[in-house]
Amino acid sequence: MVDRLACLAMDQEDPLRAFREEFALPEDEIYLVGNSLGAPPRTAAERVRQAVEDEWGRHLVGGWNEAGWYAQPLTTGDRLAPLIGAGPGEVVAGNTTSIAVYQAVNAAMRLRPGRDVIVVDRGNFPTDNYMIEGLGELRDIGEGRFDDAACVLLSEVDYRTGARYDVPEVTARVQEAGALMIWDVCHSVGALRVDVSAADFAVGCTYKYLNGGPGAPAFLRVHPRHQATAENVLSGWYGHAEPFAFEPGFRRADGIRRFTVSTPHVLSFAALEAALDMWERVDLDQVRAKSMALTSLFIDLVGDRLELASPRDPERRGSQVSFYHHDGYPVMRALIDHGVHGDFRAPDILRFGFAPLYTRYVDVWNAAQTVAEVLEKELWREDRYAVRLAVT
Amino acid sequence: MVDRLACLAMDQEDPLRAFREEFALPEDEIYLVGNSLGAPPRTAAERVRQAVEDEWGRHLVGGWNEAGWYAQPLTTGDRLAPLIGAGPGEVVAGNTTSIAVYQAVNAAMRLRPGRDVIVVDRGNFPTDNYMIEGLGELRDIGEGRFDDAACVLLSEVDYRTGARYDVPEVTARVQEAGALMIWDVCHSVGALRVDVSAADFAVGCTYKYLNGGPGAPAFLRVHPRHQATAENVLSGWYGHAEPFAFEPGFRRADGIRRFTVSTPHVLSFAALEAALDMWERVDLDQVRAKSMALTSLFIDLVGDRLELASPRDPERRGSQVSFYHHDGYPVMRALIDHGVHGDFRAPDILRFGFAPLYTRYVDVWNAAQTVAEVLEKELWREDRYAVRLAVT
Repeated sequence: MVDRLACLAMDQEDPLRAFREEFALPEDEIYLVGNSLGAPPRTAAERVRQAVEDEWGRHLVGGWNEAGWYAQPLTTGDRLAPLIGAGPGEVVAGNTTSIAVYQAVNAAMRLRPGRDVIVVDRGNFPTDNYMIEGLGELRDIGEGRFDDAACVLLSEVDYRTGARYDVPEVTARVQEAGALMIWDVCHSVGALRVDVSAADFAVGCTYKYLNGGPGAPAFLRVHPRHQATAENVLSGWYGHAEPFAFEPGFRRADGIRRFTVSTPHVLSFAALEAALDMWERVDLDQVRAKSMALTSLFIDLVGDRLELASPRDPERRGSQVSFYHHDGYPVMRALIDHGVHGDFRAPDILRFGFAPLYTRYVDVWNAAQTVAEVLEKELWREDRYAVRLAVT
Repeated sequence: MVDRLACLAMDQEDPLRAFREEFALPEDEIYLVGNSLGAPPRTAAERVRQAVEDEWGRHLVGGWNEAGWYAQPLTTGDRLAPLIGAGPGEVVAGNTTSIAVYQAVNAAMRLRPGRDVIVVDRGNFPTDNYMIEGLGELRDIGEGRFDDAACVLLSEVDYRTGARYDVPEVTARVQEAGALMIWDVCHSVGALRVDVSAADFAVGCTYKYLNGGPGAPAFLRVHPRHQATAENVLSGWYGHAEPFAFEPGFRRADGIRRFTVSTPHVLSFAALEAALDMWERVDLDQVRAKSMALTSLFIDLVGDRLELASPRDPERRGSQVSFYHHDGYPVMRALIDHGVHGDFRAPDILRFGFAPLYTRYVDVWNAAQTVAEVLEKELWREDRYAVRLAVT
């Protein structure tokens, strides 16, 4: 079994090790929730200060042109594109993943008139499925039929178990059946080399592995083959052919701009821009290799102390490791109290996310050791860990 | 005619004069575009720094609880409520005005089945009308018929002319005809004592007179009488009865939370919170009185040099003054070049916004004098002012 010194040695040899210094992380805490909210890049505070004081403060309304705010949905979209295997002019940034899902599924339904089934995974993050109730008949992918489906909406990586779909294989199968493929990459972008280039639509958020900040802008990718025909149900003025002509009726813009809606949340974009400055220097193959190594190590070190909920094959999972525990809530509370931050998802899932840019091998060792001691000493049975917070 | 010294004296006696010191404004420029993007409160930069470094940096994912991020759509909504005559539990903040319009009109259409007309003003800010194309048959308010309308969507203050509707009168007339009234208060909130309490829905933005920052969160107000029956077409997990139960199907939350959608843009909320700290100390009657005085003074001082596009009666306009000019674009460019910042709206409107918290009477005098000189010397005919920017 790998020991603590071996982990320290692996950290020394880690080609990504310098990135950890670029994050502001609390001392003496092991943060394994980067799959939920990424840590702040050290440059984020300065970039946001700049947006407030230098851009808003100096340019005032002129910032829409002079500071590039107006173009943010497109310029940031272009910067996100390489992270999902897309090209320039294919991605818009803004709003939230829920809203992007709504746009993608509405567009897909109109591209496939006569088909009224939407195939989903009941394990999708719930908001994906909630947002599209009423747009079609929802059917679980378990039934395996796509021939009457307008589209299939799946999360590349399952938010509970970390299980990963085979994107090329599923995309091909769905498209062969005449349905459109929509991928939600919230739980994979920034953790592995996402490639949804063949898919019809993709959506995702930027505040998990991408470290864009709480509530950072989401994104929507539309395959070039659909950009001339797909409709944006949220037909706001940003997607108009000539937004500043203030015409009475809506005329769709050409290209990806058609899928923008309205005014970007400029200050939230600013923090994301700081994160993207870093991502432009990251090799995604190194990210994926380290992610597989970190997660496999954690699984090995925890051993049979907990029942694994994630796939054991690293190729089949994202960058998180989940375990089942019937008293998962107090177990996680006890772990957090002892410096290991994972999270709990009802009814019985303990999640640990491994963000390769700032998680070290020694963090994995320390976390696994803490898990072992908390379980062995049954610390989680203490009364104080049973109290439920409003939001977990 | 009021002279410059009289304006300086009026500034001395202005009960709102201390607020100007709370804004970061460029020296030697007269900023009359607060009706488009408000100036930054001096506290905004510090509040946003706090959100990045103290909240995100220290609490990381715990910020959703510990820093109150999760509740932002509701807590900020409650703080906005008094600015539009609403009470607690009636307003949610987030997303954009376009999206709030889409939610409100969709909800209204479902509350009035069998009626498929949406009455709008063709002079609404275009995105309002664009967003709802396809949700019903759009008809202009000029036709004056509401008996087959599901809802009426109007902007309290016209973005081009500053003309103001009589909100209680129109609301009563619409509701008597069995239609629902939706007000867009983007161009009135923070400029006058908005009261949409009798209306069915209201939407608005917070980055104009409210100074919430570029792309600050929008808001949606739902009258309590509709909260149990109205549906949110954007049924994201935030509006679920139990968001953290991660149930497979959508169950609507009770109350105003039903109208939230998904993750708030936390850093954009932070700047708005700084602005609201200030608004809690503002007397809206003083704002309205000063707004009427500033706009009337500007109209008087400009005199017949320009053709007035705004109503002459201050009760019938918001806090902006617009003029027609066939060469409005180069005229505005020349004014900006000489330190007076208004804006131009195609085809022929010059707009000047007067934000009572930071615009002084002497600014009005100086601006009017500049207008007079630029027109008299025909400076706007210089070639350099004719070049059109991409975004104006």
